[in-house]
Amino acid sequence: MQFSPLIKDLVDAFKILPGVGPKSAQRMAFHLLERNRQGALQLSRVLHNAMEHVKHCEQCRTFCENKLCEICANPKRQLNTSLCVVESPQDVLAIEQTSEFKGRYFVLMGHLSPIDGIGPADIGLEQLATILEKDNIDEVILATNPTVEGEATAHYIAQMCRTNDVKASRIAHGVPVGGELEFIDGNTLTHAFAGRRSF
Amino acid sequence: MQFSPLIKDLVDAFKILPGVGPKSAQRMAFHLLERNRQGALQLSRVLHNAMEHVKHCEQCRTFCENKLCEICANPKRQLNTSLCVVESPQDVLAIEQTSEFKGRYFVLMGHLSPIDGIGPADIGLEQLATILEKDNIDEVILATNPTVEGEATAHYIAQMCRTNDVKASRIAHGVPVGGELEFIDGNTLTHAFAGRRSF
Ligand SMILES: [Zn+2]
Ligand SMILES: [Zn+2]
Repeated sequence: MQFSPLIKDLVDAFKILPGVGPKSAQRMAFHLLERNRQGALQLSRVLHNAMEHVKHCEQCRTFCENKLCEICANPKRQLNTSLCVVESPQDVLAIEQTSEFKGRYFVLMGHLSPIDGIGPADIGLEQLATILEKDNIDEVILATNPTVEGEATAHYIAQMCRTNDVKASRIAHGVPVGGELEFIDGNTLTHAFAGRRSF
Repeated sequence: MQFSPLIKDLVDAFKILPGVGPKSAQRMAFHLLERNRQGALQLSRVLHNAMEHVKHCEQCRTFCENKLCEICANPKRQLNTSLCVVESPQDVLAIEQTSEFKGRYFVLMGHLSPIDGIGPADIGLEQLATILEKDNIDEVILATNPTVEGEATAHYIAQMCRTNDVKASRIAHGVPVGGELEFIDGNTLTHAFAGRRSF
């Protein structure tokens, strides 16, 4: 005996979500059936709309439903000559929440990964090259993740910047503010020492 | 700066799922946008179908999309004179997986809880009374949860059984098979001692 076909389909459909196994999927299905059918219908509608209408900003490649995202559509931000390169839309949000950066972004939607067949064209680097050639950019801030792939991607883009005579910088890596030295991994500590500044 | 309206709506919609906070909701939204739009559209369709069409079995009250669930529609099961009372459809599945029980079920879809205003009518006990009166039931097996509310509900139904001259039994509570005594709570141990049988 199993659940009825529609319930089984619903449990299976929830399993595509990251971090959701069979037990959680079952809990989600019954929770909605028992207690929140209106919320579930709303989730169904919003899922459909988002999947049909969310595309990429034509300038920075982040996700948005218009031609340009909020930042690319803001004339003040576009006059700024700094361009920050990040891997994902969530990185843009994280940086925006600091209110430190007033320039433009370029969102790779990934990183170079030859093993997975992800090359420069897949992360929009042709589009970035055009921006470096034609737009008024002074400095590219490389804010890819401090992983092997993120570093390799940063190096590749730094080379593109040199070709176009644009200054490239990398965000600092080191001990997180509030972090305790004894719990920091060796690689981060190495970065922290190499990046030391006079006090 | 926030995500675009459609993305924000999607993140918010995911927060209705049990165990999903803001960070997981964001991860789900971006995972689907980036990697599985087909799966997301399928989830949208199935959610809509399930919420519109899943109702309660007219005989046992479990969730199903037809008049009768698979078990209630099975003539062999209906000839059996045992009726097992459980709190939820998931409990039916758990019991069915043991292949021990061949009778009918009655699914309360909850338990008595005067504090929350949940009385006998809310858990289908009028319908159960009709079954006890009219159907050929010899024994009711009370398999509600071993919680305060589950026990109170079992006692209430046992009283209904007495009124109708139907035998009522309660599933045994004790040390789980494979469980280690030292890690079992005192209440369960008390049940295990009280329910001891000669060896
Ligand atoms: Zn943009
Ligand atoms: Zn049924």
